[in-house]
Amino acid sequence: MIQYRLQRQDRQSKARVGRLCTARAVIDTPAFMPVGTLATVRALDPLELRQAGASMLLANAYHLHLRPGDDVIQELGGLHRFMAWDGPLLTDSGGFQVFSLQGLRRVDEEGVEFRSHIDGSRRRFTPELVVRIQRRLGADVMMQFDHVIPGQADRSTARDASERSLRWLERSRREFERTREAVVVARLTDQGGGQTLFPIVQGGTFVELRREAARAIRQMGDWDGYGIGGLSVGEPKHSMMEVLEALDPELPQDRPRYLMGVGFPSDLVEGIRRGVDLFDCVAPTRMGRNGTAFTSQGRLNIKNAALRSDPGPLDPECSCSVCTRFSRAYLRHLFVSEELLALRLLSLHNVHFLLELMRRARSAIVSGHFGAWATEWIERLAYTEPEPAA
Amino acid sequence: MIQYRLQRQDRQSKARVGRLCTARAVIDTPAFMPVGTLATVRALDPLELRQAGASMLLANAYHLHLRPGDDVIQELGGLHRFMAWDGPLLTDSGGFQVFSLQGLRRVDEEGVEFRSHIDGSRRRFTPELVVRIQRRLGADVMMQFDHVIPGQADRSTARDASERSLRWLERSRREFERTREAVVVARLTDQGGGQTLFPIVQGGTFVELRREAARAIRQMGDWDGYGIGGLSVGEPKHSMMEVLEALDPELPQDRPRYLMGVGFPSDLVEGIRRGVDLFDCVAPTRMGRNGTAFTSQGRLNIKNAALRSDPGPLDPECSCSVCTRFSRAYLRHLFVSEELLALRLLSLHNVHFLLELMRRARSAIVSGHFGAWATEWIERLAYTEPEPAA
Repeated sequence: MIQYRLQRQDRQSKARVGRLCTARAVIDTPAFMPVGTLATVRALDPLELRQAGASMLLANAYHLHLRPGDDVIQELGGLHRFMAWDGPLLTDSGGFQVFSLQGLRRVDEEGVEFRSHIDGSRRRFTPELVVRIQRRLGADVMMQFDHVIPGQADRSTARDASERSLRWLERSRREFERTREAVVVARLTDQGGGQTLFPIVQGGTFVELRREAARAIRQMGDWDGYGIGGLSVGEPKHSMMEVLEALDPELPQDRPRYLMGVGFPSDLVEGIRRGVDLFDCVAPTRMGRNGTAFTSQGRLNIKNAALRSDPGPLDPECSCSVCTRFSRAYLRHLFVSEELLALRLLSLHNVHFLLELMRRARSAIVSGHFGAWATEWIERLAYTEPEPAA
Repeated sequence: MIQYRLQRQDRQSKARVGRLCTARAVIDTPAFMPVGTLATVRALDPLELRQAGASMLLANAYHLHLRPGDDVIQELGGLHRFMAWDGPLLTDSGGFQVFSLQGLRRVDEEGVEFRSHIDGSRRRFTPELVVRIQRRLGADVMMQFDHVIPGQADRSTARDASERSLRWLERSRREFERTREAVVVARLTDQGGGQTLFPIVQGGTFVELRREAARAIRQMGDWDGYGIGGLSVGEPKHSMMEVLEALDPELPQDRPRYLMGVGFPSDLVEGIRRGVDLFDCVAPTRMGRNGTAFTSQGRLNIKNAALRSDPGPLDPECSCSVCTRFSRAYLRHLFVSEELLALRLLSLHNVHFLLELMRRARSAIVSGHFGAWATEWIERLAYTEPEPAA
């Protein structure tokens, strides 16, 4: 069980500050959750994440089922102990991953048959199996197995997928209830926390399909939180905003809304403005490994030759353990020399940047200045350092 | 200036405990220095190294001259500030690196002409230039530029190289004196510490050449410490031990002896037994990145399938931040999944292992049990987990 308490609602926008109470910790929202697909936030140590202010992490049921296996993780005491993270965890169901396996999958009402991306072995996911996998992993928040479609999908495809996701939600809930007594992992990790299941609102870019899905999900029962899926998958940016605006009145105000797989710094600000409470994305770590730093003056490409002897920090406004110790010149040197520390430090800075952005957003909402704050930050974040001529 | 104070001499062996006082810190010896060739101990953060108990780090003048350039590092306030390490630093001169560039170099009395391993550009190192590079880097301990030969080199090659190294030492010292007033970096970093220059004893595997070199070096003057080079470069293991035994009476007891580029855990124990105070080696980080962990029961290959669900730590006797948090099963999962965290964690454990081994050695010497301690550890360290049949 997790409980959400709405603490402050912005007057000019849908932005809100709240607290999510789980058995393990209290999470201030809006919150960004760093992504640890394979039970590790790429290149980072859980202690660093904690120091940077991360309160909740993500992992992925599909990936962990294939490797090392949810049975192994259960045997070792569950996902928290496995990855040495004692804060709350959310596991994505793997819907997005399975439906990304173009040509390797076959969908029917029962579930999805696919080939493992690791060894090509034939596998089958059903909503029930995915619940059982997540039970074994022991995540605090489990996501339903949903039918994910590309951002350009037409209306009829979107309707079919959304309706199937609703039927799968019903099956997921039954399996979730049936296995309630079997929360072996929670006992093993001795945290006493129960698990909860979030539904996922689908419907592609079609606003009325989204509304229908939200209503149908609410009719099914009372949920601890609501996932909004199938966005940031190739659709135009304005479509995401329209969907969020349409969903706000359809979702209960006293439950958290989780915008899945989003996003970049400006997406977070826009999402908060439209009432979103939880975000996750691989962007900070992936961009970091590619040498791009998020900063309060936009993006910075650390490989830029102009930084060769730049003594300044990545971001002069940042207080992370990278910016307080290392110069751009040093970080550029590490990148050019292909040193592993480069990947760590840029990933850490970027994760810290998003966590700090969330802290600032919460503070702006509480102090009643969110509108001006958001406008300023959207402008700042849009800037990308021009690349020097090659 | 650095000062060495001998604190305890073992009765049955040449092992000794001492303290090396530099302007930045006091180093308990015997000590292992992790290697940060390019101003970064591969995959590790200086804060982690500090926590693991590292007191002094190494960097490399050859590598840093080529990239990012000692001029850049000087401009940024020196190597300590550049890499955010406020403890003592030693820079190797690059003799080993330059002489490893087979076919890319030409040696004469003046110095070595070679091609950069990065861009193929033509470069020239002289003893004087190498001193100036290290002055600019600002390391606490600078090493002379020496002529390094392969471990199988014959007597006449070894004699020539050793005698040239002696002549280069004299030139290095003159340049060191000449540039004494120009210690710009030390002022910039505001640590006030002076720099010192260590000679390097060469002579291949030929014991009397080694003795002659040591005597000639001592006749040149009083040095703050003595490097022993050209070992662990392909010669038989017993040759290294013979050289160390021959050198012990030739080197002053009240100065530290630094065995360069050594080594593996058992080499450290054998070196200490023969009177060595300082060691450096890339082994802990390189082996870590390859998936091999040093443990108190010998070596462990973390990729071994038998560890798939092993809940135990890498080393049950280890108190490092890896062993106290993560299972072998988790570390194996990270390695098999090619996750970056794997490289960090095994490197960190291995570095901690060697630092802890040094702490134990010091404690054994102080308590008068070094002989039995060394025998037991040589035996433990010799064990390598058998590989499972493929």
